[in-house]
Amino acid sequence: MSEDQIDWLTPEELRVFRALNRAWEAAAARLDADLEREAGLPRTYFDILWRLRRAPGRALRMTRLAEITHSKASRITHAVGRLEAAGLVRREVPEGDRRGWLAVLTDEGLARAEQAAPVYARSVRENVLGPLSGRRREQLTAIGETLLAHLDPESLPGTPDEETGA
Amino acid sequence: MSEDQIDWLTPEELRVFRALNRAWEAAAARLDADLEREAGLPRTYFDILWRLRRAPGRALRMTRLAEITHSKASRITHAVGRLEAAGLVRREVPEGDRRGWLAVLTDEGLARAEQAAPVYARSVRENVLGPLSGRRREQLTAIGETLLAHLDPESLPGTPDEETGA
Repeated sequence: MSEDQIDWLTPEELRVFRALNRAWEAAAARLDADLEREAGLPRTYFDILWRLRRAPGRALRMTRLAEITHSKASRITHAVGRLEAAGLVRREVPEGDRRGWLAVLTDEGLARAEQAAPVYARSVRENVLGPLSGRRREQLTAIGETLLAHLDPESLPGTPDEETGA
Repeated sequence: MSEDQIDWLTPEELRVFRALNRAWEAAAARLDADLEREAGLPRTYFDILWRLRRAPGRALRMTRLAEITHSKASRITHAVGRLEAAGLVRREVPEGDRRGWLAVLTDEGLARAEQAAPVYARSVRENVLGPLSGRRREQLTAIGETLLAHLDPESLPGTPDEETGA
């Protein structure tokens, strides 16, 4: 099939989408590498620990964790299993609520999250925030929040879940 | 440790970074779900097929594929193995160049990529481009390209590799 027989993105559309897609992929690769190298944690694991740290009782339902991290349940189960094996999280069935397992942050998990946080913060500053002017940062916030209002209004700033966000 | 003893991101920094991080995660989850449901392909697999389709001879070195998709070599090896098992890609050692395996798109892989492309285009329009005004799209392009110039100048528009980009 020749290019113009396919309903594909126009060059203008591609340029916008690629700018976002590739910038995020390139930034995420740096964040991953920095966290792995300096804190020994994959970014998704840090994200889970950090969200648990900010949750009431340092605990979240597994189903809720999957939801707020946009992950499949199987991926969260796998990740929490690894974190449990490392002593950073434990699983509990809450009393009087048999609907779902809780992931609970251990003291060791808390220490590990707090050790990793400055590494992550430095990497975010270096790879994402630093290259952007104040005006560009404002625009990026507005763009991201516009997309979130469309895709996932619950994760916008100011919504109740915000407290547990990493 | 209390919050202010940790060198963490300020609320202002967090808001910018989260807007990007969460918007991309939410959008990527939709793109993944649409492609899987309507074309039976994970997005990373579509990305590989589409890049091969645009490459000269419909072939790319495995190491190059890893590089341009910001993936670990092991991940690309796994993905190409699955695509090969599905008959969409085959692996070849190029003559006179024993340095690396090539991934080559099969005719079936080409048909599959061309079938998936409109699904992906529709999802990108619906989930990323549609919610943004023309001005926001321009800003997003400028922001993404500023980040790429910092993180991965090679993947900027107009660079030679652009042709193979998905």
